Amino acid sequence: MEKMKIALLQMKVVDNKEKNLVKAKEFINKAAKENVDLVMLPEMFNCPYENDKFPEYAEKEGEKTWQFLSQIADEKGIFLVGGSIPEITENGDIYNTSYVFNNKGEEIAKHRKIHLFDIDVEGGQTFKESATLSAGNSLTFFETPFAKIGLVICYDLRFPELAASLSKERVDIIMVPGAFNMTTGPAHWELLFRSRALDNQVYTIGTAPARDKEQSYVSYGNSIVVSPWGNVLERLSGKEDILIADIDLDYLEKIRNELPLLKHKRYDLY
Amino acid sequence: MEKMKIALLQMKVVDNKEKNLVKAKEFINKAAKENVDLVMLPEMFNCPYENDKFPEYAEKEGEKTWQFLSQIADEKGIFLVGGSIPEITENGDIYNTSYVFNNKGEEIAKHRKIHLFDIDVEGGQTFKESATLSAGNSLTFFETPFAKIGLVICYDLRFPELAASLSKERVDIIMVPGAFNMTTGPAHWELLFRSRALDNQVYTIGTAPARDKEQSYVSYGNSIVVSPWGNVLERLSGKEDILIADIDLDYLEKIRNELPLLKHKRYDLY
Repeated sequence: MEKMKIALLQMKVVDNKEKNLVKAKEFINKAAKENVDLVMLPEMFNCPYENDKFPEYAEKEGEKTWQFLSQIADEKGIFLVGGSIPEITENGDIYNTSYVFNNKGEEIAKHRKIHLFDIDVEGGQTFKESATLSAGNSLTFFETPFAKIGLVICYDLRFPELAASLSKERVDIIMVPGAFNMTTGPAHWELLFRSRALDNQVYTIGTAPARDKEQSYVSYGNSIVVSPWGNVLERLSGKEDILIADIDLDYLEKIRNELPLLKHKRYDLY
Repeated sequence: MEKMKIALLQMKVVDNKEKNLVKAKEFINKAAKENVDLVMLPEMFNCPYENDKFPEYAEKEGEKTWQFLSQIADEKGIFLVGGSIPEITENGDIYNTSYVFNNKGEEIAKHRKIHLFDIDVEGGQTFKESATLSAGNSLTFFETPFAKIGLVICYDLRFPELAASLSKERVDIIMVPGAFNMTTGPAHWELLFRSRALDNQVYTIGTAPARDKEQSYVSYGNSIVVSPWGNVLERLSGKEDILIADIDLDYLEKIRNELPLLKHKRYDLY
């Protein structure tokens, strides 16, 4: 039996980077005690989800938050998908970036959110990420001893072409640091995780910040694990919490054999 | 207000072509009385869904069932998506084919099912369409005065790349004659229609044969209409019935403006 034990850290994010790192450390320490193989933080875990805050909290690669993640992954001997943080480059561009570290604290992958979240729902949520952020330009996937993992951030999940491209690379899991809101969350969060898992014959795993009605952007929470048959295996509420789950990679093989979608692709036509 | 009125004919299919055509005629006549613009029949509406039956019921293009569809579309002045039937070619290949007629009875599109349904779920459904059928080799979409419509058949719907390709052609609706079964229907039918609609910013519309426990392959039924926000607007049970729905194309534009997924595609990356 090939299994991977993971922890999703649905932490509350406040307007204080230091406090966010202390909270992340506390949650990672708790998860590590459960002997997990991999830990995942939510989108923008060190910074409030606000356009004004992204430049203020942004760091260059290798700076404070990156160092914190690298060190704790090494210290605890865990793979760490570092949610995301605002990354600033030499020329001042800011990205919504997820760094991934192996169990020695080495960076093994980095995803810059490809699709920027610009939405304006009548009577619902409005946001314009592109006002401050730049868009990433590449697909991200990495190997672990347990599984090959694809990585996308939040709004990226809405684009079936991206998940299908990761499926073509034969990833086993698609991980999604994400922060849906109180309009799009109830309407689409579960639907998207279920359909991406079913269509692409992968597990989908999403980690969100805990809900906090004091924030200008209210995260839906509901960190989630979905099976390749499209079933929700585990799901949190809006509250601050840790979700621990076993990912059964033998079951993934079983589904791929019974419903051989990957073999039936017609890449000559699309 | 741009609206299209449609009827989905969830008829029971029996092992007698003549009786199936009589039933289809009766249902089309009923629908025409409601002043619908377009009528849709289910997958394999003239033939039981069995490998042994496909060669027996197969017809060349322009033969009996095709004539029936063309004449009644003209007579009633309706657009007609002719579900699907087994089509045999000069050289003996058999396809699962959907013919589409305009309101003058002219064939305006033809889809041969691209992805053949070969499945073997432990303790559930087994079927091997490729034992008798050949696979189509092209995408299908057509214009009507109301909307641009993409057409796929049943298992084709499981491939997100196909729907995404139709979306790239800017179809407004994806129509799906389909016959999911009592394993895949409850598990995935609604999920697939909802996610294809949401992801591709289209209406999705599925028409299935009515459920009949006497058949070797038991159709799930549940003919369905889903909005581009991913909501189920209308849905039948397993029983023989007609579903009549108004498709609001102004609402489609509203969703595409509020959540502009089509503008945010990154075709440079996938």
